[in-house]
Amino acid sequence: MSKERQVLNKENLGITPGLPLQASQGGIEELRADIQRLMDMEAIRQLKYAYFRCVDTANLEELATLFHDDVTVHFIGGSYEWKVQGKRDYVNNIGAAFSTEAVGQHNAHHPEIQMHSETEATAIWYLEDSMWILNHNARTRGTALYWDRYLKVDGKWLIKDTRYERIYEINDQLTTRPNLSSHYLGAHGGEPQF
Amino acid sequence: MSKERQVLNKENLGITPGLPLQASQGGIEELRADIQRLMDMEAIRQLKYAYFRCVDTANLEELATLFHDDVTVHFIGGSYEWKVQGKRDYVNNIGAAFSTEAVGQHNAHHPEIQMHSETEATAIWYLEDSMWILNHNARTRGTALYWDRYLKVDGKWLIKDTRYERIYEINDQLTTRPNLSSHYLGAHGGEPQF
Amino acid sequence: MSKERQVLNKENLGITPGLPLQASQGGIEELRADIQRLMDMEAIRQLKYAYFRCVDTANLEELATLFHDDVTVHFIGGSYEWKVQGKRDYVNNIGAAFSTEAVGQHNAHHPEIQMHSETEATAIWYLEDSMWILNHNARTRGTALYWDRYLKVDGKWLIKDTRYERIYEINDQLTTRPNLSSHYLGAHGGEPQF
Repeated sequence: MSKERQVLNKENLGITPGLPLQASQGGIEELRADIQRLMDMEAIRQLKYAYFRCVDTANLEELATLFHDDVTVHFIGGSYEWKVQGKRDYVNNIGAAFSTEAVGQHNAHHPEIQMHSETEATAIWYLEDSMWILNHNARTRGTALYWDRYLKVDGKWLIKDTRYERIYEINDQLTTRPNLSSHYLGAHGGEPQF
Repeated sequence: MSKERQVLNKENLGITPGLPLQASQGGIEELRADIQRLMDMEAIRQLKYAYFRCVDTANLEELATLFHDDVTVHFIGGSYEWKVQGKRDYVNNIGAAFSTEAVGQHNAHHPEIQMHSETEATAIWYLEDSMWILNHNARTRGTALYWDRYLKVDGKWLIKDTRYERIYEINDQLTTRPNLSSHYLGAHGGEPQF
Repeated sequence: MSKERQVLNKENLGITPGLPLQASQGGIEELRADIQRLMDMEAIRQLKYAYFRCVDTANLEELATLFHDDVTVHFIGGSYEWKVQGKRDYVNNIGAAFSTEAVGQHNAHHPEIQMHSETEATAIWYLEDSMWILNHNARTRGTALYWDRYLKVDGKWLIKDTRYERIYEINDQLTTRPNLSSHYLGAHGGEPQF
């Protein structure tokens, strides 16, 4: 485990202040833009929420609607590093990981969204996740800070860049299989690749 | 554990797109309606948040203010299925489950709210929960997708229909009692029924 | 463990209804105030989110920007009670606790924000947390209800009062060190004090 870690503050993550959470002093057109900005923040939250719902249920069809074609992915875990470029590879990678032997729980908390224009935004999120790979008796769990960039294309917000680094990660080798009484991916996950 | 599971996508859950997150092109009355819609979404989130706070603290008095009289409940867990009709039975069932022998943690993440009119909305939520039944040395934990319907009645949003199915559920038989240094339900839960 | 616990309902927490989530019937100035109120709620959420991000990454510099100079802190855990007055002591206490021997995970769910004026608000939050103190082989985890008061000073929302009581707390003495493959505080936490 490396002790060399960049400081995860806003400056290093490239997070700059967005448009202020301050109602315009202007007239009806300016207020309309303010309302749109609040709606855009809601749409961005729902975009990320749909992402995690689709990941943990291996819903690749809906997942593919959430990414920009040129999405950039860079996740630095404790036991892995994941770099992907482009929607097709990203969806394929998720499809391979979320197999019938996987149990995934990925929850994103604490959205800190910055709106930079009518079509550009960033956000920091606080991920909590657990992932079992049943045929390897392995469980990985931990937390991470995400920092994302979103673009609005043809009226729809999309994930353009997504990165995370861990706050902590714990890897457990399990001696017994978890006593699963329900396992959605067991019915609807992809074919295990390894 | 059944391998027969419906696919938990929006189509199967009956979740259709609500009013778009798009500011009106109209005048002041249309913008007022947009603002009200954003406020309604906030009220619906707070409704669900109050629900889980009241459940885990056995606050049945406030809980009863959150449901429509004709609320429909259908929860499909791994080791249980729960169907309830009507506010009185729902509150009574929660009161029985959240006893002095229970420790409950129920957190709803990722609200995907769709507004269908000024008085109708749906939402998908991603539940994470842990429930200990101390006198049975049992712990059940897992996640689920909720899909709810809400109605605004006399100016107040209420839970009209609530359903969930598990993404996963793990049932553990505990060999030792958890080392509880704080246990709110131990002081304020109901009488254990079993 | 005391069985004497105050009932954690809104009345006992001093949480009264804020301004209603009801769009004004007035003109453009009233709608501007409504929009500002929605933006203020977003700013308060982001304030609390930044707090937990800074705590778990020992980011004391940003943390100090989030509190009112006269912040009041009162946390009642199962195995501890924490009373602090003033920003300097609060930041110093967090700095001492989040050392290189700590792993912290603090997530605040379910914000129930009440706006009382243009510069005053309260909120209830549902905390879930886990805290390892590695050199003591100790892990504390549980949930709690927070009730906070916020003030807007010079255009910025600040935490003025923050309190919590536990719903449950479990204290585990660990027999083995967790198998950490990533540990941000190990690189960037403070000097252990005990």
